[in-house]
Amino acid sequence: MEGGDYFRETDLLLSESMADSMNRNSSNMRREGANGNVDGRHSAVSTDDELLDIRTGALEHWHDSDEEETSKNLNSSSSNLMDTLDDLPPGIGQYEDFHTIDWLRDIARDRMRHRHIIKNKQDGIWEKVKSAHDAWSGWVCVLLVGVAAGLCAGIIDIGATWMSDLKEGICAEAFWLNREQCCWSVSKADIDDDYCLQWKTWSEIFGGSRSGAGSYVVTYFLYMVWAILFALLAALFVRVFAPYACGSGIPEIKTILSGFIIRGYLGKWTLLTKSVGMMLAVSAGLSLGKEGPFVHVASCCGNIFSYLFPKYGTNEAKKREILSAASAAGVSVAFGAPIGGVLFSLEEVSYYFPLKTLWRSFFCALAAAFVLRSINPFGNDHLVMFYVEYNEPWYIQELIPFVLIGVLGGLYGSFFIKANIAWCRYRKNSRLGNYPIIEVLVVTFVTALLSYPNQYTRLNTSELIRMLVGRCGPEDDTDLCDYKRNYSSHQMNETYLKSMTSSTVIGDGVYKALWMLALALVFKGIITIFTFGIKIPSGLFIPSMAVGAIMGRMIGIGVEQIVVANHDNPFFENMCESKQFCRITPGLYAMVGAAAALGGVTRMTVSLVVIMFELTGGLQYIVPLMVASMTSKWVGDALGKEGIYDAHIQLNGYPYLDSKEEFTHTTLASDVMRPRRNDPPLSVITQDSMTVEEVEHVMKSTSHNGFPVIVSRESQYLVGFVLRRDLNLAISNALKLQDGIVYNSIVYFTNHVTENPNDPAPLKLRKIIDMAPVTITDQTPMEMVVEMFRKLGLRQTLVTHKGRLLGILTKKDVLRHIAHLENQDPESILFN
Amino acid sequence: MEGGDYFRETDLLLSESMADSMNRNSSNMRREGANGNVDGRHSAVSTDDELLDIRTGALEHWHDSDEEETSKNLNSSSSNLMDTLDDLPPGIGQYEDFHTIDWLRDIARDRMRHRHIIKNKQDGIWEKVKSAHDAWSGWVCVLLVGVAAGLCAGIIDIGATWMSDLKEGICAEAFWLNREQCCWSVSKADIDDDYCLQWKTWSEIFGGSRSGAGSYVVTYFLYMVWAILFALLAALFVRVFAPYACGSGIPEIKTILSGFIIRGYLGKWTLLTKSVGMMLAVSAGLSLGKEGPFVHVASCCGNIFSYLFPKYGTNEAKKREILSAASAAGVSVAFGAPIGGVLFSLEEVSYYFPLKTLWRSFFCALAAAFVLRSINPFGNDHLVMFYVEYNEPWYIQELIPFVLIGVLGGLYGSFFIKANIAWCRYRKNSRLGNYPIIEVLVVTFVTALLSYPNQYTRLNTSELIRMLVGRCGPEDDTDLCDYKRNYSSHQMNETYLKSMTSSTVIGDGVYKALWMLALALVFKGIITIFTFGIKIPSGLFIPSMAVGAIMGRMIGIGVEQIVVANHDNPFFENMCESKQFCRITPGLYAMVGAAAALGGVTRMTVSLVVIMFELTGGLQYIVPLMVASMTSKWVGDALGKEGIYDAHIQLNGYPYLDSKEEFTHTTLASDVMRPRRNDPPLSVITQDSMTVEEVEHVMKSTSHNGFPVIVSRESQYLVGFVLRRDLNLAISNALKLQDGIVYNSIVYFTNHVTENPNDPAPLKLRKIIDMAPVTITDQTPMEMVVEMFRKLGLRQTLVTHKGRLLGILTKKDVLRHIAHLENQDPESILFN
Repeated sequence: MEGGDYFRETDLLLSESMADSMNRNSSNMRREGANGNVDGRHSAVSTDDELLDIRTGALEHWHDSDEEETSKNLNSSSSNLMDTLDDLPPGIGQYEDFHTIDWLRDIARDRMRHRHIIKNKQDGIWEKVKSAHDAWSGWVCVLLVGVAAGLCAGIIDIGATWMSDLKEGICAEAFWLNREQCCWSVSKADIDDDYCLQWKTWSEIFGGSRSGAGSYVVTYFLYMVWAILFALLAALFVRVFAPYACGSGIPEIKTILSGFIIRGYLGKWTLLTKSVGMMLAVSAGLSLGKEGPFVHVASCCGNIFSYLFPKYGTNEAKKREILSAASAAGVSVAFGAPIGGVLFSLEEVSYYFPLKTLWRSFFCALAAAFVLRSINPFGNDHLVMFYVEYNEPWYIQELIPFVLIGVLGGLYGSFFIKANIAWCRYRKNSRLGNYPIIEVLVVTFVTALLSYPNQYTRLNTSELIRMLVGRCGPEDDTDLCDYKRNYSSHQMNETYLKSMTSSTVIGDGVYKALWMLALALVFKGIITIFTFGIKIPSGLFIPSMAVGAIMGRMIGIGVEQIVVANHDNPFFENMCESKQFCRITPGLYAMVGAAAALGGVTRMTVSLVVIMFELTGGLQYIVPLMVASMTSKWVGDALGKEGIYDAHIQLNGYPYLDSKEEFTHTTLASDVMRPRRNDPPLSVITQDSMTVEEVEHVMKSTSHNGFPVIVSRESQYLVGFVLRRDLNLAISNALKLQDGIVYNSIVYFTNHVTENPNDPAPLKLRKIIDMAPVTITDQTPMEMVVEMFRKLGLRQTLVTHKGRLLGILTKKDVLRHIAHLENQDPESILFN
Repeated sequence: MEGGDYFRETDLLLSESMADSMNRNSSNMRREGANGNVDGRHSAVSTDDELLDIRTGALEHWHDSDEEETSKNLNSSSSNLMDTLDDLPPGIGQYEDFHTIDWLRDIARDRMRHRHIIKNKQDGIWEKVKSAHDAWSGWVCVLLVGVAAGLCAGIIDIGATWMSDLKEGICAEAFWLNREQCCWSVSKADIDDDYCLQWKTWSEIFGGSRSGAGSYVVTYFLYMVWAILFALLAALFVRVFAPYACGSGIPEIKTILSGFIIRGYLGKWTLLTKSVGMMLAVSAGLSLGKEGPFVHVASCCGNIFSYLFPKYGTNEAKKREILSAASAAGVSVAFGAPIGGVLFSLEEVSYYFPLKTLWRSFFCALAAAFVLRSINPFGNDHLVMFYVEYNEPWYIQELIPFVLIGVLGGLYGSFFIKANIAWCRYRKNSRLGNYPIIEVLVVTFVTALLSYPNQYTRLNTSELIRMLVGRCGPEDDTDLCDYKRNYSSHQMNETYLKSMTSSTVIGDGVYKALWMLALALVFKGIITIFTFGIKIPSGLFIPSMAVGAIMGRMIGIGVEQIVVANHDNPFFENMCESKQFCRITPGLYAMVGAAAALGGVTRMTVSLVVIMFELTGGLQYIVPLMVASMTSKWVGDALGKEGIYDAHIQLNGYPYLDSKEEFTHTTLASDVMRPRRNDPPLSVITQDSMTVEEVEHVMKSTSHNGFPVIVSRESQYLVGFVLRRDLNLAISNALKLQDGIVYNSIVYFTNHVTENPNDPAPLKLRKIIDMAPVTITDQTPMEMVVEMFRKLGLRQTLVTHKGRLLGILTKKDVLRHIAHLENQDPESILFN
């Protein structure tokens, strides 16, 4: 009965006035922890050394905001503080930075809080309101998160479009308009419209002419200047305000969702910096996308709003439910694909995904998508980023090129992952890592220099994809759509025209376009390797999709021409209407290619197909998409099991226990637990025979996060487990505030205390001991242990043999063991 | 190290020649178990008493097929049998009927098998092929399952359409054609086409005329005769061939997937009977659908094909991966909604759903959908059951009626669940349950009698829904589409016409249709309560959707008329083009209503919205669908937490530990474990001090499925756990086959055996003991215990206090405890 009391009382107290005093204490604790742990974290979280100093700055920000929130309540809490201190020391249930959370315990805490509310429900109207608020807070919170994510995405999209256009010119009459808006009054502006008078290019403003060599040089130069300026600003913002804002954020969010604390990673400074930095980075024309960062931004919103609801803000396990929903909203706004977003969150990002979360995530994703739709940053009425509608069916013969595209996508994905990881590792271990801003500038310079001359790379990457996946309409006069249109006038009715022009014999323009696309492919493929990982916000979805779409479009045109040339071959019989009109849609190949390349890089499966399905909006292309992404994943997996996010998690040594990979070795718990054979014995605490001094000595002599409590040193039978943090707090509070407690006091973890008037007053710590630690026997196979860690979200488990305590096994031990078995350096796992 | 050896050796042996001998033995065991347990199962699985005798028949079938499979290998195995018996008794790792499986153990077994294959991979080409086969078998298996499910669905659809038409007439020239096919040559047949000469109605054949009172009576009479004949046949088939084929099957499949054995439930007899019975039941015009049974049929395919791949066939935990995929395929073919199917499987049916399964389920669902599409039983080129495409947008004001529809859907759902469960409980406890066939006939008689006069109920239910969710085209001349079309000829271009006729002032036909729909609503709403649960295959999706669609369409017409009447009200301003043309789509309301009613009955969430989204094929209606299904679920949950499937699971007392409901009580493991305070002490076995006779006595004195092994009776320290089944087999084999083993032999579960030449030979049973049982302390809160049971798929856990064994806690104990806390009868939980 007693162990249950611990839980019950802890939580009743937690949910009442203790919460605020706890916050204050734990905030101090955290600061200590942050400073104390600096060395340990050093090479791990930061991918370069410099960031560290800045990061502690970011942590300070975090603490400030923490204290801001609690300061309101401090006055009222100080009296309660004294009343309750005798019962339970404050700060229990919180975690230190860079530590693993204990899911089971957090969820138990939440249930306790919930029961408390239910019990009080009868006590009047106010309690009823509180109970209703509690019941609805999850929905309200995800609604707010969804709306906020949609707003952020809208603002970023608008800002990025304006700044991107700023590289080439400015709206003469209203500088705050982008080119499309500027030319709106004149005619419906499309990508190649150069005849809008309101829109002044820089060469017009400085040189006076719109065309000619001089104008080209001026525009080229200013394009580069703007690009470098934007990139510099982005890099500076990240460096000064929030170092955590760099990169895509998905590896870290995966780690956080798997139950790890990185304070400040989802804070408001990161949110602001990432948003602004993303606009700048995209505008700089770098080969990066907004999609990964959108997930990060949405998760920041999730984290910030969760503090409005104590149910989520004060419970790390519950908070992760909101974060799961937020990451779904991130993908939802990135592509306008709410269902795909939810599946992405389920498949790729989230770790523990209760079904309740599924429904809320969906709601959150939909809210975000609708807010974004109201803002309408893409200028089309469709929800999605690249809305396409193909008229033509696909033919079973086309599966051959689709499989080929899948193979190429898988190969590219593996190549990209290997090359990018190698480059990131080099950056980490060489002097290059010391100059992040210079690196950003160099990458930007090279990107801008090489991308301007090629019209396909000069375009915004998402516009490039939109162009590649599109069909060639009758009015399209781009190179890519330079088909020979030699139809007679009586055939000119609208539907026929559409079907005709979508596929026919190509003109010279297409050959030119193919050459430019080939150059763009090589350029994009290589520069992305160096771009992903520099110290500005950068996503990977769009560049990967662009590479795939270029490849797909090229293959599509090739297939089209092969079919046209062999239209009388029985193999292609049903595909051609006449010898010039064959029903092949190169745009579909581009879409399939985008799916294949993205699948190869990220190893997403269902979510990828669903996102693409939502983009194309028709079930009929689901088979080509599935075939390509399946092939791509299989080819990719054959060359290296990890997706880019997992590879980055491993590179950074985050304590992430992959729930997808199977543990296939035959080791036992006794092989992995500490202490090892020749180690000193495990630091333990006995239940009723150690003095305060001895306990403190045990704590000082090791850095473990917790200590098993046993009956006696002779018998070694396990009683429970106590956390270092709790023990520390309890002892120091008792020494300060409780009468009679001295260093010679015996510490009791039992209910029955033999009080001897001659001895100093005993210190009763029954309440802080966890009487229900998860235990396993030494004979338990490691695969079962790994399964338990994954499914129950354990932080540690105690190993026994016939009831006697043998050792302890933490998540870190498990991860190191796995790394060791896979011939990797076990020391790469750095956190607890 | 030793405990690991147990696992290793067990599995190496299992995967080799032991497998066949085991099969033979366990097949005998099973039959014994089946007969021995008959009384215990009696009132539980069968919802009536009669079925029991038939069920044992069904089990016989199962065993026969089992022996068929193994008989091939029996000759080769008999010699191996003798060699290996000394090491390990056969039959270990199998489960008895109506028992819970141990997931952790099964998965460990599979990994062991996998390691064995990987290790042998180097031993030559053949082993490499085996390894490749093993790696691909999952994909091949789900492909086969998908194809089979698609084929079954196609055959059932075609058969049901033909037989449904048979009720009204026959194709004169070719009786095997249904009406649509029969009239194909004449003109494109639609639902109301009565002018096809090839199609003879029964009154034409018997009475000579197509219309008139006499003809009506003849047709009515023959309609009823056919209906009763079909229903009788269906009921007889179910009764004679496979009693498990009745009902929807989803509650049972949920239970099976949560880790329970019901032998024969997914066997080939059930598959055949269910398929034929479903055709008959649908053709009988009963208020039931094919969708739930499709899930059952697909799961049968999954089970049958899994036996082709020993990896899945011999491992219950792995088999459930295939079954999860199969249930996704079931929904996929039911609606042509592969993504919705996967989410249905994830959300509603499956229990343990590793992410690997997600991708495979998707593949399986897609394969099934494509096979069905090639068969094309719905006669349209779209994949889905009710393909609709609305032209009009929805307006924000319409959310008010959508919420109303949601509320009504939720109310209907709750009412339906309560009424249906009450009726099923009455059937179970009264004499009614003894006459299942008469019940079927009475329900059919009432249904046919009342449904023929009303054109909406006379229709096939899925055709009714298709009609209700459709738009009114310009050529529609049904009552439902009797709108006043007073446009002048110059407006007659096609697009304008479409938009005009979709909404305008109604004529008399619509009023008539509304009355008929109201009658249909009442009739369908009530008759479904009595239909769901009778002893023929019956699904619930379509009748629920029909009720919702009727309701929705009626509300839609109402809203339309309100808007038309108040078209100048500023509230409706943007919705009307002129005073006669308002952009309201009553069909959309029907769709939303279908979602709301289905949501209220089943409490599905995301999967429901996604299925509906796939049906409508456009993201733009996702918000109305979501609003309605969300409201419906909330209203429903407020009136009663359980969906219809969970209610039936509870009614039947299946051991299903719901993973969605939270355990909210404060009890501890010590409150729940056995032995209770006044019970006799726990039956235990000591590791090295009991004789064979004593062990047998322990086994005889209790019916527990397993026994903890302890160091000694004095110390009670836990060593491991041994299953009754394993112990029984080991002892009886040893007594028969091992020299020197007598009743006085000491049973040793330790490695070190002190052999005394004066004593009888010791019986060493080290290998059958599980040295890594999952243990908890007595102080563990029950919520944590429940979490562990759910997430790890435990069968039992041992309760200790400071290392000493206190008791045992099985899944049944947990379920009984939950039932007790919720003021239900704990004795309703019947199985282990």
